[in-house]
Amino acid sequence: MNKVAIVSCETSKFRKDSKGSIFDDAVQTCGALLKKCVLPKSQIDAVLFSSCAGEQYSASIISEMLGITPTISHRIDNLCNSGTDAIVSAFSYIASGMCDSVLVVGAELANSPGNQLLWDVSRGSFNFPVHWAAMYAKYHMRKFGTTEEQMAKVAVKNRLNATRNPKAVFKESITIDDVLYSKPIVDPIKLLDCSMLCSGSAAVLLLSEEKIKEVTDNPVWIKGIGRHTASASFSSVLGDLSSILSAKKAANDAYKMARISPNCIDVVELHDAFTILEILAYEDLGFVDKGKGGKFVDERRMDINPRGGIIGCGHPVGATGVAQTAEIVAQLSNEATGRQVKQCKNGLILNLAAAGTSATVIILGTEA
Amino acid sequence: MNKVAIVSCETSKFRKDSKGSIFDDAVQTCGALLKKCVLPKSQIDAVLFSSCAGEQYSASIISEMLGITPTISHRIDNLCNSGTDAIVSAFSYIASGMCDSVLVVGAELANSPGNQLLWDVSRGSFNFPVHWAAMYAKYHMRKFGTTEEQMAKVAVKNRLNATRNPKAVFKESITIDDVLYSKPIVDPIKLLDCSMLCSGSAAVLLLSEEKIKEVTDNPVWIKGIGRHTASASFSSVLGDLSSILSAKKAANDAYKMARISPNCIDVVELHDAFTILEILAYEDLGFVDKGKGGKFVDERRMDINPRGGIIGCGHPVGATGVAQTAEIVAQLSNEATGRQVKQCKNGLILNLAAAGTSATVIILGTEA
Repeated sequence: MNKVAIVSCETSKFRKDSKGSIFDDAVQTCGALLKKCVLPKSQIDAVLFSSCAGEQYSASIISEMLGITPTISHRIDNLCNSGTDAIVSAFSYIASGMCDSVLVVGAELANSPGNQLLWDVSRGSFNFPVHWAAMYAKYHMRKFGTTEEQMAKVAVKNRLNATRNPKAVFKESITIDDVLYSKPIVDPIKLLDCSMLCSGSAAVLLLSEEKIKEVTDNPVWIKGIGRHTASASFSSVLGDLSSILSAKKAANDAYKMARISPNCIDVVELHDAFTILEILAYEDLGFVDKGKGGKFVDERRMDINPRGGIIGCGHPVGATGVAQTAEIVAQLSNEATGRQVKQCKNGLILNLAAAGTSATVIILGTEA
Repeated sequence: MNKVAIVSCETSKFRKDSKGSIFDDAVQTCGALLKKCVLPKSQIDAVLFSSCAGEQYSASIISEMLGITPTISHRIDNLCNSGTDAIVSAFSYIASGMCDSVLVVGAELANSPGNQLLWDVSRGSFNFPVHWAAMYAKYHMRKFGTTEEQMAKVAVKNRLNATRNPKAVFKESITIDDVLYSKPIVDPIKLLDCSMLCSGSAAVLLLSEEKIKEVTDNPVWIKGIGRHTASASFSSVLGDLSSILSAKKAANDAYKMARISPNCIDVVELHDAFTILEILAYEDLGFVDKGKGGKFVDERRMDINPRGGIIGCGHPVGATGVAQTAEIVAQLSNEATGRQVKQCKNGLILNLAAAGTSATVIILGTEA
C-alpha cells in the first residue's frame, strides 16, 4: 500500500445563511488552497466533491471552474460522513497507485437536503436526530451518573474554542447556565447542547509519497483509517446505548492500522453534533474508561475540538468531515494560528453520520 | 497494486415507468446476485451505490436492507458516468488492499433528477443533450461522408440485439425506415436515434485475488482502467468535433494499463445514448481509423452492444455503467444466454457523461 499524506488545507467562513452558490463557495476555498500549494493545477489527478446537495455532475463542474482536467472526478455523499468518506476514497486512489494527487472539497448550504433523513421515520418531526441523542444522554446519566452540567461544559468549552477560530459561525463564548437554561428540545437535550446546521466549505490536498517530496518537507501522513456502517436507521442499533458501536469499531481499526494506542493522540476533532456525543466519544475512542466520559470533561487532559468542533463552528453537513481533517492537518503543521496545540505529533478525527449508525476515524501524524 | 476481479453480476428488468422504490429495486437485484454467489454477506467489506437520485444516506439504507454491515459504504454520483465511477472506486478500494470485496449497485428511476444538467444551459429545453449530438453528427457527415442511414443502422442493430435480452425495455426490432422517418428532434437526430431514460438497476461484486480463490476458478479480471474529465459543459470541449476527447484519452490509458491493443477486444458495451456516439466510439476506441466509423457499421466485424446497448436496453442513468459492466462480465463468463458472443476473452466498456465531457473505459479479461 503506497503511503499517503495531506499537504494543504483550507476552510471557508462558516455562516448561518444559505445565500450564494455552493459551487462558488467550493471553488473559492479550493482556489485559496491551491494558492498556498506549490503543486500546479495540471498535476491534480482527481477531484472528489463531498456534499449532500441536489446539484448534478458537481465534481466535474467544480473541476471546470477551477481549470482542472482530472483523471477521476465524482461526488461522494453519505450525510455527515460524506467528507471523511471522500477522504477515505481519496486515500484509496493514492494508496492503490491509481493517482498521485487528489483534491477533496466538501461544501454545503445551510438549507441542504442532507439536513433530513426522511427514510428514518424514528426522527419524528425534527430535522436533527435529537430523539436518539436524548436516549444516549438519559442512558449515560442513569447508568454512569453523568450530569447535565457535564454535558453543558462540553458546549461551553467548544464555544470558547470557537472564539479563537475566525472561520466559526459562533463568535461568543457561553456559560454553563446559558446551556442549562436554553430552550428544552427533547429532555435532557437543550438548544445549546445541539450544533447548528450552516453553510460552509473545506478542502484538503492528498499526495502520494513520491509526489510529496516535490512539495514539502513536513507533510501530515495518514497513518490509520477505520470505518464502519452498522445500519441506516437508529432503531437498528439499539442493542447497547452505552457506546456508539460504529465509532468503537472504527477507532479500533484505525489504531490497529496506525499501530498506535489512544494515549499517543495529542489533538482530536470529534463529532459533537450534540454534547453527549463528545462524552461518548471520549470513551469509545479509548481516552477514558467506559462511564468516565462525564468526569473527563472536567479534567480537560486533552485538546479536543480546538477549532470549536461542530457545536462551535457550525455543521455544513457534507463539508464537516473535510473541515475536521483540515483542522488536524493545520494543528500538526503548526499552522493553527490563535489556537495552536503545543507539541502535537498525532491527531485523530472522528466523524459520525445519522444517529451514529456509521462512523469514520482517521489518524494523522507527522511521522510516516 | 493488488489484482481485482468481478465474479458475479445481475440486472433488473428495465422499465419505462417510475413506479416503486429505488431501494427495493436495488436490493432485489443485489439479493439475486448474492443468491448466485457463494460468498456470505458477512464477508462483504464495502457497499457502493451509484445513482443520481435525491435520496440521502442511500448506501447505508441499502446495506441495512440487505443485512450487510460493511466497513465502507457511500453513494457515488456523476450523471451517466456514475456506475463506472463506482466500479473504478471499488477497484481502488481493493487494489489498495483496504477491502477484499466490494458490492457495487446502481439504480435509477425514469424520473431521476439526473436526467437534467441544469448547470449547462447550452442544452436548451431538452433534458437530453441532443443539441451536441446533432453537432457531432453534422460534423461527421460533412467531414467524412457519414450518412443518416449508417446512423440508423446502429439503432437497428442495437434494437435487434435487445430482442435477445429479456431485461431490455425494447422488445421489438425496428427497420432503417422506422428510424429515418421517426420524429425529427434536432437535425439530423431523429427520435429513434436517441436512447430513452428508464428505470432499472444492476449490481456487480468485485473481489481481491486472494478472496477470489474461495469463490470461483473463472473470474473476470479488471485489466485496464482509463478515466478522463475534460469539463462539465459542452461548450468547453468544442475544439474538435471529430472525436470525443475524453473517450480517446480514457481508451488510451486503459489499453496501456491492460497492455493490449484494440484488436484484442472481442466484445464491447459502449455508450450509445445517440447513434452518432457509437460511430464516434468505433474510432475513438481504435477499432477503425478516424472517419471510417460510418462504414464500420455496415461491416459488423465486432460484437458491439450485445445486450442492446443504451438504445435497446433503455438508460437508467446511474445504473447504466454497472449494467454495461455486468453484460461484459456475463459475456466473458459464457453466461449471456441467448446472445452469447463466441470465444470472447477480452471485453471493453466505454461510458460517457454529459455531452462526452467525461469518459470511463474499463477493460475486462479472462486472463489476469
